[in-house]
Amino acid sequence: MFSKDVYIRRRQTLLAKMREAGQSGLILFVGNADAPAQYKDNCYKWRQDSSWLYYWGLDEPLMAAVICIDSGEEILFADDVDIDDIIWMGPQPSVASKAASVGVAGHRPYGALAGWLQERTKGRKVHFLPPSRYYNTMQLASLLPGSQPSEALVKAVISMRLIKEDIEIEAIDAACALGFEMHSVARDSIAVGLVEQEIVGKMEGVALAKGWGVSFPTILTQHGETLHNHGHAAVIEPGKLMVIDAGVESNEHYASDFTRTYPTSGKFTQKQREIYQIVYDCNELAFSLTRPGITYREVHLATARRMLEGLSALGLVKGDLDEMVAKGIAGLFQPHGLGHNMGLDVHDMEDLGENLVGYDPDQTRATQLGLRSLRMARRLVPGHVITDEPGIYFIPALIEKFKKEGLGYDFVNYAKLEGYYDFGGIRLEDDVLVTADGARRLGPRRLPIAPDDVEAVMK
Amino acid sequence: MFSKDVYIRRRQTLLAKMREAGQSGLILFVGNADAPAQYKDNCYKWRQDSSWLYYWGLDEPLMAAVICIDSGEEILFADDVDIDDIIWMGPQPSVASKAASVGVAGHRPYGALAGWLQERTKGRKVHFLPPSRYYNTMQLASLLPGSQPSEALVKAVISMRLIKEDIEIEAIDAACALGFEMHSVARDSIAVGLVEQEIVGKMEGVALAKGWGVSFPTILTQHGETLHNHGHAAVIEPGKLMVIDAGVESNEHYASDFTRTYPTSGKFTQKQREIYQIVYDCNELAFSLTRPGITYREVHLATARRMLEGLSALGLVKGDLDEMVAKGIAGLFQPHGLGHNMGLDVHDMEDLGENLVGYDPDQTRATQLGLRSLRMARRLVPGHVITDEPGIYFIPALIEKFKKEGLGYDFVNYAKLEGYYDFGGIRLEDDVLVTADGARRLGPRRLPIAPDDVEAVMK
Repeated sequence: MFSKDVYIRRRQTLLAKMREAGQSGLILFVGNADAPAQYKDNCYKWRQDSSWLYYWGLDEPLMAAVICIDSGEEILFADDVDIDDIIWMGPQPSVASKAASVGVAGHRPYGALAGWLQERTKGRKVHFLPPSRYYNTMQLASLLPGSQPSEALVKAVISMRLIKEDIEIEAIDAACALGFEMHSVARDSIAVGLVEQEIVGKMEGVALAKGWGVSFPTILTQHGETLHNHGHAAVIEPGKLMVIDAGVESNEHYASDFTRTYPTSGKFTQKQREIYQIVYDCNELAFSLTRPGITYREVHLATARRMLEGLSALGLVKGDLDEMVAKGIAGLFQPHGLGHNMGLDVHDMEDLGENLVGYDPDQTRATQLGLRSLRMARRLVPGHVITDEPGIYFIPALIEKFKKEGLGYDFVNYAKLEGYYDFGGIRLEDDVLVTADGARRLGPRRLPIAPDDVEAVMK
Repeated sequence: MFSKDVYIRRRQTLLAKMREAGQSGLILFVGNADAPAQYKDNCYKWRQDSSWLYYWGLDEPLMAAVICIDSGEEILFADDVDIDDIIWMGPQPSVASKAASVGVAGHRPYGALAGWLQERTKGRKVHFLPPSRYYNTMQLASLLPGSQPSEALVKAVISMRLIKEDIEIEAIDAACALGFEMHSVARDSIAVGLVEQEIVGKMEGVALAKGWGVSFPTILTQHGETLHNHGHAAVIEPGKLMVIDAGVESNEHYASDFTRTYPTSGKFTQKQREIYQIVYDCNELAFSLTRPGITYREVHLATARRMLEGLSALGLVKGDLDEMVAKGIAGLFQPHGLGHNMGLDVHDMEDLGENLVGYDPDQTRATQLGLRSLRMARRLVPGHVITDEPGIYFIPALIEKFKKEGLGYDFVNYAKLEGYYDFGGIRLEDDVLVTADGARRLGPRRLPIAPDDVEAVMK
């Protein structure tokens, strides 16, 4: 948690933005409840809502808060503990002192929220964010039946959370330091014959020992062509490529998100190295282009061109590069976008709407495979924190689909591609801050990424 | 997952029980959905509903199933994957083959459930279990507005899941082996100066490397008097008692649940050892009494008596033991029950109702502090899997409350108790199977528990 001045300032800014946008009424924030894994008293690890954390800081379940746009009044709704809670959970500070710790003057019991809203709204608009969990959906449906989330509030929140403050950048750097440590443990644990789950457990143990845990379910797979593979029952085989896409969420709830791809036998084959080099070049190119003024859509397309150039040199595609870029041929190999925003969420604010978060008002989302999955397309400004994560995958089902539908026949060497059906995939991801005059990779050290460096560091 | 015969047999038994109870209509099971941690696509680790796992085996989100009580017809509702799913999640078996793998003949798309129910129910009763997650609550409210869970179904399910089959006992033994390993790592990691979270991370890493993860949020605290303490920010201090209450859930989703209490400096002080010995005696006594025919309520009360006997010898209480037991004086020191059922859930079937699970029809739940928190009171029969977890805690807030309200004045030496306000707490827990002629502790080896053994094994 930051000092209370941070939360006071953020709420004041939010209030000013809502007023500037001509909004009135109330702003309602509903914090998370514990999420049952099994029965109600056996819950997943507690995680507060990210926008709640941003404006209200308090990292505890069953809280809500309102800001009156007209008067500026702020009230925290939360319950004081009773003797039973003290027996089971230990002595707790009072709600009054919790509210004071984030600069909020008013407080009432959590259960008083429904009645208070009923009494105070009376035709006034209540602005709230789209809920991201089932509990919050139910809670909002019960408090404000039939009401819809407020686009004005969504836009105001996005405009603030999108540009990271210095204290946030410091926190993300710290999360990236933990991510570096977790990835290093993972890399050093790769050994033919081991079950993948054993490495995942070791990695996530680091995340839990030093941070809140992982910032998303760990991807660790010898089938990198399966983009979101969360099964870890496979035994590590020689000669494979192991994609590890994983991040730590720090105790302050900021994310890191790195991907590296390792040869399970310690050395790349010639074929693996050729593809790896292309992905590495794309990663480097994206970073070199990242600076205020350029759109990340342009950076995505520049890496797509570079990727096609490399694949062309290998004879896997052929034709005019610009034409291939325009026709979305790169999407066959990289059916995802170059990157996304990162902060309190690893895909920052995804619950507020991907397009509102990742696209400027004058940008429209593409429909082409690959480009349509680009989560961050905006014109870059200092304070954006984004991922740079190109990848090349050989997905037999997708290639066969393209082929059957006659797509890309002028450009794709389908016969040669068949020799890559057991290749897997490669993705290389760094976390990047847009600075005043360029960009900086986040975290104190960069995970080894050049192919020679990777081979050198593998045990 | 077990072989399909297991699931077929279980569903046939359930059907027979419902028919014997004079029930008709449909039985509906709703499996879990992924539970968002942040936004909808960033979820907590997938965990299926336990009763679903018991009857339908399939360990995947967004499935439902029905059994027609009258005809015996069974239908699985689930969706086949499309090309997008294959790109992101890899090739998947068909719903038909998934259904066949657990012996179910019929299958339909998940989205067809609402329409199918509407068409087929027509005034017939639909039996379903109480939902344990918000998603399932919403889903059931939408499918069957205004309907209540079926007590007949709850009772039939409890009667089956309560008595563990041999394959389940084997699975629980395996989970206990993992629990043993996790606890051993934790014990060996205790070191003055370390932050508690570092041990928790190491432990949970073991659980994730070898099993599904922890079977409940780990309790690791130098404030054992706080029964459910999930904060781990404290630095380990010398001379303290460290309570570690933690379990592994195996990849087959069976739980273990052990508690040990360690002296942070490696040796107990005289005062710590005196209290430890009493708790240890209670744990041993409970195990020695555990056999078919006795109620676990009687075992709880026998340990309460032994606890008061020990505390009496230390001069912390005084008076007639039977009278103190009857008046619930032990509850001041152990405000929880002796144990609970354990299986697919660590508190097995707690979502189906604590009293229906843990109490025979002729037993009523006590209102006294301590005994009222006993989750398992039933007359024991072979196949019960229960925990044996006595504890002694010195909870200043609770003692002061007792004192202020004039409770136990004839028995409790409040003056002497003040010397224990910084003591903390001790709990010692094993997992126990009721056998044909007695009981067996689960897991291949017992974690060191006798005070000398604990000191000997600490590094």
